[in-house]
Amino acid sequence: MTLMRAIHVLNGPNLNLLGQREPEIYGSDTLEDIAQRLAERAAPTGCEILLRQTNYEGELVEFIQTARTDAVGVIINPAAYTHTSVAVHDSLRTLTVPIIELHLSNPHAREAFRHHSYVSPVATGIIAGFGANGYELALDAMLAIINPG
Amino acid sequence: MTLMRAIHVLNGPNLNLLGQREPEIYGSDTLEDIAQRLAERAAPTGCEILLRQTNYEGELVEFIQTARTDAVGVIINPAAYTHTSVAVHDSLRTLTVPIIELHLSNPHAREAFRHHSYVSPVATGIIAGFGANGYELALDAMLAIINPG
Amino acid sequence: MTLMRAIHVLNGPNLNLLGQREPEIYGSDTLEDIAQRLAERAAPTGCEILLRQTNYEGELVEFIQTARTDAVGVIINPAAYTHTSVAVHDSLRTLTVPIIELHLSNPHAREAFRHHSYVSPVATGIIAGFGANGYELALDAMLAIINPG
Amino acid sequence: MTLMRAIHVLNGPNLNLLGQREPEIYGSDTLEDIAQRLAERAAPTGCEILLRQTNYEGELVEFIQTARTDAVGVIINPAAYTHTSVAVHDSLRTLTVPIIELHLSNPHAREAFRHHSYVSPVATGIIAGFGANGYELALDAMLAIINPG
Amino acid sequence: MTLMRAIHVLNGPNLNLLGQREPEIYGSDTLEDIAQRLAERAAPTGCEILLRQTNYEGELVEFIQTARTDAVGVIINPAAYTHTSVAVHDSLRTLTVPIIELHLSNPHAREAFRHHSYVSPVATGIIAGFGANGYELALDAMLAIINPG
Amino acid sequence: MTLMRAIHVLNGPNLNLLGQREPEIYGSDTLEDIAQRLAERAAPTGCEILLRQTNYEGELVEFIQTARTDAVGVIINPAAYTHTSVAVHDSLRTLTVPIIELHLSNPHAREAFRHHSYVSPVATGIIAGFGANGYELALDAMLAIINPG
Amino acid sequence: MTLMRAIHVLNGPNLNLLGQREPEIYGSDTLEDIAQRLAERAAPTGCEILLRQTNYEGELVEFIQTARTDAVGVIINPAAYTHTSVAVHDSLRTLTVPIIELHLSNPHAREAFRHHSYVSPVATGIIAGFGANGYELALDAMLAIINPG
Amino acid sequence: MTLMRAIHVLNGPNLNLLGQREPEIYGSDTLEDIAQRLAERAAPTGCEILLRQTNYEGELVEFIQTARTDAVGVIINPAAYTHTSVAVHDSLRTLTVPIIELHLSNPHAREAFRHHSYVSPVATGIIAGFGANGYELALDAMLAIINPG
Amino acid sequence: MTLMRAIHVLNGPNLNLLGQREPEIYGSDTLEDIAQRLAERAAPTGCEILLRQTNYEGELVEFIQTARTDAVGVIINPAAYTHTSVAVHDSLRTLTVPIIELHLSNPHAREAFRHHSYVSPVATGIIAGFGANGYELALDAMLAIINPG
Amino acid sequence: MTLMRAIHVLNGPNLNLLGQREPEIYGSDTLEDIAQRLAERAAPTGCEILLRQTNYEGELVEFIQTARTDAVGVIINPAAYTHTSVAVHDSLRTLTVPIIELHLSNPHAREAFRHHSYVSPVATGIIAGFGANGYELALDAMLAIINPG
Amino acid sequence: MTLMRAIHVLNGPNLNLLGQREPEIYGSDTLEDIAQRLAERAAPTGCEILLRQTNYEGELVEFIQTARTDAVGVIINPAAYTHTSVAVHDSLRTLTVPIIELHLSNPHAREAFRHHSYVSPVATGIIAGFGANGYELALDAMLAIINPG
Amino acid sequence: MTLMRAIHVLNGPNLNLLGQREPEIYGSDTLEDIAQRLAERAAPTGCEILLRQTNYEGELVEFIQTARTDAVGVIINPAAYTHTSVAVHDSLRTLTVPIIELHLSNPHAREAFRHHSYVSPVATGIIAGFGANGYELALDAMLAIINPG
Repeated sequence: MTLMRAIHVLNGPNLNLLGQREPEIYGSDTLEDIAQRLAERAAPTGCEILLRQTNYEGELVEFIQTARTDAVGVIINPAAYTHTSVAVHDSLRTLTVPIIELHLSNPHAREAFRHHSYVSPVATGIIAGFGANGYELALDAMLAIINPG
Repeated sequence: MTLMRAIHVLNGPNLNLLGQREPEIYGSDTLEDIAQRLAERAAPTGCEILLRQTNYEGELVEFIQTARTDAVGVIINPAAYTHTSVAVHDSLRTLTVPIIELHLSNPHAREAFRHHSYVSPVATGIIAGFGANGYELALDAMLAIINPG
Repeated sequence: MTLMRAIHVLNGPNLNLLGQREPEIYGSDTLEDIAQRLAERAAPTGCEILLRQTNYEGELVEFIQTARTDAVGVIINPAAYTHTSVAVHDSLRTLTVPIIELHLSNPHAREAFRHHSYVSPVATGIIAGFGANGYELALDAMLAIINPG
Repeated sequence: MTLMRAIHVLNGPNLNLLGQREPEIYGSDTLEDIAQRLAERAAPTGCEILLRQTNYEGELVEFIQTARTDAVGVIINPAAYTHTSVAVHDSLRTLTVPIIELHLSNPHAREAFRHHSYVSPVATGIIAGFGANGYELALDAMLAIINPG
Repeated sequence: MTLMRAIHVLNGPNLNLLGQREPEIYGSDTLEDIAQRLAERAAPTGCEILLRQTNYEGELVEFIQTARTDAVGVIINPAAYTHTSVAVHDSLRTLTVPIIELHLSNPHAREAFRHHSYVSPVATGIIAGFGANGYELALDAMLAIINPG
Repeated sequence: MTLMRAIHVLNGPNLNLLGQREPEIYGSDTLEDIAQRLAERAAPTGCEILLRQTNYEGELVEFIQTARTDAVGVIINPAAYTHTSVAVHDSLRTLTVPIIELHLSNPHAREAFRHHSYVSPVATGIIAGFGANGYELALDAMLAIINPG
Repeated sequence: MTLMRAIHVLNGPNLNLLGQREPEIYGSDTLEDIAQRLAERAAPTGCEILLRQTNYEGELVEFIQTARTDAVGVIINPAAYTHTSVAVHDSLRTLTVPIIELHLSNPHAREAFRHHSYVSPVATGIIAGFGANGYELALDAMLAIINPG
Repeated sequence: MTLMRAIHVLNGPNLNLLGQREPEIYGSDTLEDIAQRLAERAAPTGCEILLRQTNYEGELVEFIQTARTDAVGVIINPAAYTHTSVAVHDSLRTLTVPIIELHLSNPHAREAFRHHSYVSPVATGIIAGFGANGYELALDAMLAIINPG
Repeated sequence: MTLMRAIHVLNGPNLNLLGQREPEIYGSDTLEDIAQRLAERAAPTGCEILLRQTNYEGELVEFIQTARTDAVGVIINPAAYTHTSVAVHDSLRTLTVPIIELHLSNPHAREAFRHHSYVSPVATGIIAGFGANGYELALDAMLAIINPG
Repeated sequence: MTLMRAIHVLNGPNLNLLGQREPEIYGSDTLEDIAQRLAERAAPTGCEILLRQTNYEGELVEFIQTARTDAVGVIINPAAYTHTSVAVHDSLRTLTVPIIELHLSNPHAREAFRHHSYVSPVATGIIAGFGANGYELALDAMLAIINPG
Repeated sequence: MTLMRAIHVLNGPNLNLLGQREPEIYGSDTLEDIAQRLAERAAPTGCEILLRQTNYEGELVEFIQTARTDAVGVIINPAAYTHTSVAVHDSLRTLTVPIIELHLSNPHAREAFRHHSYVSPVATGIIAGFGANGYELALDAMLAIINPG
Repeated sequence: MTLMRAIHVLNGPNLNLLGQREPEIYGSDTLEDIAQRLAERAAPTGCEILLRQTNYEGELVEFIQTARTDAVGVIINPAAYTHTSVAVHDSLRTLTVPIIELHLSNPHAREAFRHHSYVSPVATGIIAGFGANGYELALDAMLAIINPG
């Protein structure tokens, strides 16, 4: 029997609205649609996808703690907690697997308070500004890191 | 006869050392190796790659100006000029094609003077921290933008 | 049958102590007393009041998300999250109904860290410093906006 | 003979243009119209309204000084002097009656230089963002303070 | 009968001393001399000049308000109020005619507190550092804007 | 029958990992081990220990609110919320019992964003940098305050 | 006939309230009382006193301009304009006689916005914190400067 | 034989695009058209115009160095280098002829990073916001300085 | 013969007043009383206490230098030099024994200039806000470090 | 027998050079000359003068501590320690007698690092910019405070 | 045959003017004169001197890159690029030979924008303020590093 | 008899540890060894060396004051007082002989609080980062200044 290797795709506050809110900008795909597409894309590599969303900082911390033992990589779209959460920063620091920070839009083209990230200092890499397609780019980037060559 | 569509891949100062400097970190691929790989990857889409490098801010501005008429997309790794060049910002603002800002390492995990980018406010998206593999991620992201669906 | 139109009155952390804590300053009315008074005041206009309180940032985000479909207006006393929550800011931005920011005391007469509000940039109007009476002022203001003339 | 109790409604620079400038935003009511409406609203409480406007910082200081002896409450829309006048701050500090700071628009949704107020630290309460209707809200708030219960 | 079109030339505090104070630097021309020269220069274009000076912020606001209906363009040398007056900023924002900001000396070569201008964000153009001759340059610039081609 | 007096020992995000994470630095004691040691140490004084941990800011606020009626002292290791939570600050301000702020490591020897504490202004005393042993020092300090002499 | 030499004693906003406001702190002397005492004190030196007060920044500028020709020294208590008036700074710079900056209280023991003075850089000397007695100290200091030895 | 006196008109990065880029804003005149118009305007004064453009900071420094011996005045539109080039500042400081700083648009009405100029501290005067017409205003200003009276 | 191991307890400026100044706050114990109590408490561990005080930054540096060879641990209450002395910081950096920073009061609940410490970055741990009792807590903490287990 | 009441006149670093250094600015009086003049001036009031100088921060602290019991007032010219010494601030705070801060020159007309004073927040009054004559003004001010009326 | 070891002496913008500009300050030696003197001084040590100058940031980067393989030490007078060039910083970081930062004048005695250096963090040592003689001091310092003892 | 000319070599806090502390970095030479080497090096020029060290700011001030009359030049390694001592700055300003600021290490490659120097603005030149060899470089630089040519 082969154990699956999981990539955790963690999503912060208000991302549960994806697909409903401003679909002309963010597209009509929901997180569920994205989870499905990622799972299909990852399948040939023997990786499974665990996509989760929460509006609670504390729950996001706990999702990350779970990844300490259960994940081979973490893709995180921390949304608003990017800019305000030292708790998320601290839990990410306890991970030893690769971490990719993901944003739908480009935070540096928005308000000044979005220019600082507590996640970037502990992230392996950053992908921002590509909308929902960023999830697939992040998955490809993660797979390249964990399956190099 | 079919006209090729070009994606310009512009590189700033000190990137001519890629492959020679700290190969254990950045790998042993040179910009020429990368150009070749990108060209092969882009070929099926009918896009060609124009990869250029310069150590001069003024020349980087002129590369960007050329892209005004000759490119369907610009991938730019501005290196040190990311943080200091309003001139690069100004020339990028004259473009109407998609712009992807690329960094080999994650600037937000480095010195504070690397946390501000004059390129981000005019970039469509940002990819950082994936080493030489970032060029391929950026190409995929660009192709997805210019050939959606 | 007539559908009621709801005004959501959302309250942030520590406001569950209202009426118990420093009653000589804030009065002895609890949130429940206030909810009742507001309901009576709104009744003639055909509006109902939904008053909610939470100490959790994530739950406050979800209260706001609910208002996207269920409310004709939002009165929010974000308390401490006024100054620290980008998540609340982001969820408020998804609303199209009027938003009134409410504070029992005057934050600008207190510590410097209370002088910045993440809510004000997305609020229609602000009412601060009138104690529990502010809820009634905010209701009147809201009714004037949604029932002009 | 009954002595009337006066509420002073003091208005700073450029508010003499109210009703002429951007009426689609601020409405077509002039300060005179507002004064009249406030007087009618206050009449049953035995309060009269003294509404004054000036473009001069020095004159605004003198209006406030007058309120030291002649007013039971001050509603002040300091307009631009909100952000620049220590003199207005100093004269307001000499008052013992309640002070309500009023703004037609929401200063925190505008330029950064409008985010600081020299009036807020000495104001009892703040009402902002409700256009001309703010005067009536402020009057109600003032009446509730001076005629509690 | 032909209606004259007026260009208002508004001058802030201490400019009444022009011609008396440090004439070796600023020349011996008074504001009256300048008004006369401008009038002669403008005459062929069918424009008249209304040159006014005040030491009062409030009066400067009122001069600007007058220009709302009476001027085809405003040249303003706000002197010290450049750096401190939000009220002047606000009244200039209500104008729809061109505004030229004028300074006798170059504020950026002086103390740091002269480097910020509340007028620049609402000015069409800026002329600084040319002494009394700046008035004629500003007039030429204004005439070119209102009589293009 | 003797009523026990409780000291609440409240712990913020990621402290549930204590004993698992970097045991060579923080030791292999878990929070449960610490709770037990504290209970034994407090027993002779007639105090009991209530040790709680949460990753949620909102729940930490509620733990603190509980201490309003149930505790004779609060020892709080707010972890990441030290630096970001006004809500925790506000709930601590409602307490009248002594508050000791505790940190495993020395925040001032770490990143700049750990140099500011929202808890310190409302804490009686601070103990930082002594690892798990800090809990016992804090308990001794608390006992000395509530049982002076 | 002997021409009197005048020392101008200029007073800014709210100082007309001296003697009425908080007399237990500032004493019950009015500006008129002070003027009289100063006149008596100066009389033996052949100097007269011109004490003036205004709440208008523009008028204070004009008082200072008058001193250009009529005064042998200026004692100025600019009150709130100390901290906000570049116009007062500019007019003081045109003087060649000694200037003494005077404050009833000690601005550096008050709010941060009172720690900066636009007058200090152009003042010969500063006297602060001695209440009404400061006027006499300032007069003695001025007389010592203009009548040295 | 009469030696011509040259005014150097130096232009920084991206100004080679003038006339092509956003012609509805900046007009359709190219730098060559402007050079020609300036030459005609200067001809009666016996001055010739040397208009140059470069995208390179180093070349702009060298253009300025040339002006040390060959120019009677320098008009410089440093574009992006205004805000970032100490090298341009240093070379301008070696000049003894008049220097006019020119901008097509008004930098103070744009992003904050355009509010600081390294050129202003060494410029005689500044002209900004008049589009291509600014070149003619600058020429007139220069001629008035070098041919006074 | 057994060599005693010394813990140095170093005290900065104004601490010689302990016991005389505000005894209702700081208690009536003098440094001598404290030294005695610490000596008794340390005796069973085979450690002796060397308690010293100085008002001179230079002497405090020399006390610390002495600890390089003579101490097994340093408890330092640097008082005012906490916030201003790089020299103390530098001498503490030369130590290899544990360092505990001690404050009678909680500096973070006082003026902003007391929020920065030059000692914290080189201290093992910090104890603050427990009055004279802090010395005993610090001794216990030190003993636990040097005699672990 | 009558006990003399002492006014301590404390002087900080480099003031021992008074009279030798730049006598054309500061005069040729030494501190000894000043001490003598002050003693004569104070004699009729039954006060004696104790004038001391030190270049050591620690000694200045001790001079101030001595004044706790021996002085009826302190005039302090802290020179450089004005701007850097929290220790001096702390020792001055322990005094209950009046404190006058004295400077020979006007610190606000000098470098920015002289604009902040650690002494001003605890000083009764400030006298600056009057050279050696400031000592006599300070003495008069002190005598007026301790012998009012 | 003996291979010469080269010390590269790299000079930034405007240093080509050395000897022509303000010779009374900087002396009349040109860079060529300096190169010759350095060569003679270095000759006995078997080192040769390669002195180069450029006004282009990009060319300075390339001079530094050349030193990666060809130099035993780099003396760099980056002039204006000291303060603005991250590109120079980045290329210097790739060197493993000693780097000496050299300035003719003392940047810390000049404008604030000259107080920060992007070169200092990667320089072995700094020599500033000794005019042209600094080159010889830097050479001696370099020789002592590469030929220790 | 020939009077010797003295160069004072003044050393600040913790430099008495030179040779003992981290000898692998700073070498094993003590200040005495350095003094001897400098004396030998200076001997042929007819200069003697007076090398002094102190940990006291006040004593360093007095060493500098002595140099006013006894020295032909001052080499000062102020160590920690570089960054904190206005008193040292003030005493150095009274000197007319050349001053060389010396640091063993490069302060700009260390913590931010070492980037500002109170000594640099009054120093002729700066030498930093060359370890103990810096003393000899500084001596050579000093001799070149006082014995030019």
